Amino acid sequence: MKVAIVMGSKSDYDVVKKAEAVLDSFEVPYVTRVISAHRTPGVAASFAQHAEEDGIDVIIAAAGKAAHLAGVLAGNTPLPVIGLPMKTSDLGGMDSLLSVVQMPKGVPVATVAIGGAENAAYLAVQILSVREKGLREAFKAHKRKMEEEILAIDKEISR
Amino acid sequence: MKVAIVMGSKSDYDVVKKAEAVLDSFEVPYVTRVISAHRTPGVAASFAQHAEEDGIDVIIAAAGKAAHLAGVLAGNTPLPVIGLPMKTSDLGGMDSLLSVVQMPKGVPVATVAIGGAENAAYLAVQILSVREKGLREAFKAHKRKMEEEILAIDKEISR
Amino acid sequence: MKVAIVMGSKSDYDVVKKAEAVLDSFEVPYVTRVISAHRTPGVAASFAQHAEEDGIDVIIAAAGKAAHLAGVLAGNTPLPVIGLPMKTSDLGGMDSLLSVVQMPKGVPVATVAIGGAENAAYLAVQILSVREKGLREAFKAHKRKMEEEILAIDKEISR
Amino acid sequence: MKVAIVMGSKSDYDVVKKAEAVLDSFEVPYVTRVISAHRTPGVAASFAQHAEEDGIDVIIAAAGKAAHLAGVLAGNTPLPVIGLPMKTSDLGGMDSLLSVVQMPKGVPVATVAIGGAENAAYLAVQILSVREKGLREAFKAHKRKMEEEILAIDKEISR
Amino acid sequence: MKVAIVMGSKSDYDVVKKAEAVLDSFEVPYVTRVISAHRTPGVAASFAQHAEEDGIDVIIAAAGKAAHLAGVLAGNTPLPVIGLPMKTSDLGGMDSLLSVVQMPKGVPVATVAIGGAENAAYLAVQILSVREKGLREAFKAHKRKMEEEILAIDKEISR
Amino acid sequence: MKVAIVMGSKSDYDVVKKAEAVLDSFEVPYVTRVISAHRTPGVAASFAQHAEEDGIDVIIAAAGKAAHLAGVLAGNTPLPVIGLPMKTSDLGGMDSLLSVVQMPKGVPVATVAIGGAENAAYLAVQILSVREKGLREAFKAHKRKMEEEILAIDKEISR
Amino acid sequence: MKVAIVMGSKSDYDVVKKAEAVLDSFEVPYVTRVISAHRTPGVAASFAQHAEEDGIDVIIAAAGKAAHLAGVLAGNTPLPVIGLPMKTSDLGGMDSLLSVVQMPKGVPVATVAIGGAENAAYLAVQILSVREKGLREAFKAHKRKMEEEILAIDKEISR
Amino acid sequence: MKVAIVMGSKSDYDVVKKAEAVLDSFEVPYVTRVISAHRTPGVAASFAQHAEEDGIDVIIAAAGKAAHLAGVLAGNTPLPVIGLPMKTSDLGGMDSLLSVVQMPKGVPVATVAIGGAENAAYLAVQILSVREKGLREAFKAHKRKMEEEILAIDKEISR
Repeated sequence: MKVAIVMGSKSDYDVVKKAEAVLDSFEVPYVTRVISAHRTPGVAASFAQHAEEDGIDVIIAAAGKAAHLAGVLAGNTPLPVIGLPMKTSDLGGMDSLLSVVQMPKGVPVATVAIGGAENAAYLAVQILSVREKGLREAFKAHKRKMEEEILAIDKEISR
Repeated sequence: MKVAIVMGSKSDYDVVKKAEAVLDSFEVPYVTRVISAHRTPGVAASFAQHAEEDGIDVIIAAAGKAAHLAGVLAGNTPLPVIGLPMKTSDLGGMDSLLSVVQMPKGVPVATVAIGGAENAAYLAVQILSVREKGLREAFKAHKRKMEEEILAIDKEISR
Repeated sequence: MKVAIVMGSKSDYDVVKKAEAVLDSFEVPYVTRVISAHRTPGVAASFAQHAEEDGIDVIIAAAGKAAHLAGVLAGNTPLPVIGLPMKTSDLGGMDSLLSVVQMPKGVPVATVAIGGAENAAYLAVQILSVREKGLREAFKAHKRKMEEEILAIDKEISR
Repeated sequence: MKVAIVMGSKSDYDVVKKAEAVLDSFEVPYVTRVISAHRTPGVAASFAQHAEEDGIDVIIAAAGKAAHLAGVLAGNTPLPVIGLPMKTSDLGGMDSLLSVVQMPKGVPVATVAIGGAENAAYLAVQILSVREKGLREAFKAHKRKMEEEILAIDKEISR
Repeated sequence: MKVAIVMGSKSDYDVVKKAEAVLDSFEVPYVTRVISAHRTPGVAASFAQHAEEDGIDVIIAAAGKAAHLAGVLAGNTPLPVIGLPMKTSDLGGMDSLLSVVQMPKGVPVATVAIGGAENAAYLAVQILSVREKGLREAFKAHKRKMEEEILAIDKEISR
Repeated sequence: MKVAIVMGSKSDYDVVKKAEAVLDSFEVPYVTRVISAHRTPGVAASFAQHAEEDGIDVIIAAAGKAAHLAGVLAGNTPLPVIGLPMKTSDLGGMDSLLSVVQMPKGVPVATVAIGGAENAAYLAVQILSVREKGLREAFKAHKRKMEEEILAIDKEISR
Repeated sequence: MKVAIVMGSKSDYDVVKKAEAVLDSFEVPYVTRVISAHRTPGVAASFAQHAEEDGIDVIIAAAGKAAHLAGVLAGNTPLPVIGLPMKTSDLGGMDSLLSVVQMPKGVPVATVAIGGAENAAYLAVQILSVREKGLREAFKAHKRKMEEEILAIDKEISR
Repeated sequence: MKVAIVMGSKSDYDVVKKAEAVLDSFEVPYVTRVISAHRTPGVAASFAQHAEEDGIDVIIAAAGKAAHLAGVLAGNTPLPVIGLPMKTSDLGGMDSLLSVVQMPKGVPVATVAIGGAENAAYLAVQILSVREKGLREAFKAHKRKMEEEILAIDKEISR
């Protein structure tokens, strides 16, 4: 069982780390890579083509602006690819979002919210839990924990 | 192995049928339901809460405008939920897209393109193929078939 | 007579407090709650289903991003629900606004401006004043006070 | 008990009629008016200023483009004003929506979806039902009826 | 000869002052007022209705969000009204712009750029110069001065 | 007294004719020209540079997409230039609107609504009426006529 | 001297033919290909990698939605790549435009207007004319011809 | 061989310098100019008209808001013009982008990303390399260098 986290640029790493933290909390093994769809296209294609045989189950791809990384990886692998559109300084990430989510027929990218690194990881866990019973239970525990946190906050604030 | 396709309104069915056709082509069993997050909230919650024990592995939720269906289902199940934002007559589906994709931390929705019913189904197949080897092979065949179709079109048109 | 103010996340509280202040100024009783449509969906449904019998007349629901809280509450109660879309750091609140206002036929949400916490409270007062004559008079006084403030500013600045 | 439906232009009437139909179904009395914030500003101000004493409880204001009608009426009355932004041929109604919903502090407009005439009327019913017990029961019946319609459609389509 | 500068809120004054400075530089007399379309609607209507007889030739109206001020003034006066949409903290002023510029047939507002206070004043000067020969010459001098400034900067920077 | 109506493309003429009709109704003389900022830049510059001496008082410039015509004319003349952004088939005219209205400091364009040809003409009349008393009276009559039309429609529809 | 026109889908061909017609009119040789960045990624990479040695000077890439084709080609070739974003049925082509134009540092795509197939070809001609004197003259003739067409239309329409 | 970099305002220079740095790194000669389409229209036209005979091969035009500079230059020269839309403080540069890219048929502008000064320069190099073999090789080296940088970052970060 393994997740690959790929980011298009080193500058995405501060956000991407939040995805790592979520996977760590579920004890899901992962590799983290910096691969650019445009600057290292050969590596991107090769990485995606070999991902399945390298034991990877799900790929998370983080990129911004004309964010082609998730789509390029999805074009080169049968594995499910989760697209994480990065916030941008000019258009707020609307460019990233549309570049990631509006994929043509036949090659989906499972897109999460702009900057939603944690959710990219949670979605990877949910996808893996289709096979891994333990992760399903862990995800249920995560849901209960979130619920309890909100209940505690509600208790503290409500009046 | 089972997928649930849920739509928020009967008017979504013409688009949703394309998802059914894709699942049919992969021989993936599915149930199709019309459940409204706002008009039948109890059914929506109950459906999602029992989806896992009902043998469902992945949920596809199609809805438009303030499209809460996918998020509401995701809040009530640990299963991966695929959000299919429907095109709208006034804002083109931008409202649906943002309502589906911009989920808060902890509760992801795997969002596909506006009106991308086929891709919702392909993504369901990809997710299932994390467990089902046969589907993985079938998805690879789908990718080869798409490739061959483009190659044939290229042959026909190129000059 | 009672208003319920519900927010989807503790981080909304700084803005929501402005709604509390307005209700305080009208001496309108209220309860403040933190309830998440996605993380505590059962509480959200239950809260809304019992709101009428709990003596609540109007609900204010503040949420951001894919802001489903107002819609989810509206789906579970016959009470009027005021939607307060929160500003977001990437899309400025356009996502929140569309997720709150674009409700499907049959289940309206009375939406106010992005971040317009005071107006959510003023609208609650206006709605209550359909029944409470005293609030109607108090709201007229509020309008006169606003008018006087502008007139004073005009006097100070105009030249 | 009376609702006023005001539209900014005769061309809005086809949409506005759907609000009338909803109010008819609840047997809520209403007046329908064509008043332009820009072409008959005096009538708009006067209508709003006298609405309360004319026995009106809630105002629905339908307008498109730079849709000032709802805001202008709200500025001249303490009554709750429901804003109905009309779809536009160029920007889809985004202009109407922002012109209606983004009201400044102190003067809210309860905004419904673009073209959501039925919801404007349902919201008026909800607001009136704060005072009128019969309407509250009728609105609950409306919710049950919607639920039953979806359940019937679900029964018909689901498989 | 007189221009009226009207702003909807005191908070607009920092920007509006730039319009004053431009009018000062052309020695065009003006009055500056704080009048709210929604909080002092009677003053707004009355001001606009008497503007012509008060010797005002052109009105500049600055407002943000659901910016109705320019439209409301234009509805109440035959004078040309220049709309100055203010930048907003959430949508950048897109809401203000659409609320100001998308006026219905028959009641135009001469709209300038978001936050373009200087241009509102320059446009007022251009409009007045249809009558005032001296202003026409002064505006030509302004154009020459701008040209010279750019030429000087070009000389300094170009290489 | 003369208005110039300039359009960037013959395809704009169906819309531009509505501006002609308004000017005709006010008996305001005008010239209509097809001049492209990009395809006949020399004519555009020359036309604008000589407009004042040719007896033109106000210029209306209609253009779509990257609509530079109004700005280019404004750069070459001290006359007030009214920008008429044309609706576009892909972005609805948002591109035209932003290209026309967001002019830099010093060179304003008086922008009207997308496709608002009549308003471009009405604004020209308002600007001319700063000098021409007769037009001011005619514009007041126009306002009264609009008012009467709405009143008549209101009488017909209201109930 | 050769241009390559690549489109991502056969459905783009009706628009792409206009680019072919422009190149035909300049007697610029070209190849037309259907290559999908996502469905035939290997062909896309290989085509771009060999384009230079295949004698291609400029590449035009037409694609819609999450339009990655131009970027993918640009990542695999040193040749200038012209991006032609296709109009889309839901978002009007805003998705295509942002996916094509917002390229990261180091890998530009020369983007033309949404649906601007002719301009993609004209731009290819302009780029080639940096080397080919004859094309430069032909492009000047094209500019003169456009100018004459506008002048003729102006003559016909102006009054 | 020469590139011209033209900016519409001195305030663009901080961004434009990045284009200079890229051209410097390729040892491509360039001139830098500050020319405003609206404030020095004569200089803009004259500059563009003489650019070819002045030995310029490619023009880079940087401008913001209603960014007409690139289009105006393109209208006056047969040379390829690269448009660099500047980020704006209110709309993030969406106004600049649409004003630059949505050029009408016959007069293309090769548009790069908002604020993408480096890419404007890289594109100029790519265009020049159609003629200059040395630049083609240098650009390939640039691509290899980018690739190596990403590979090094990947080596450092990947785990």
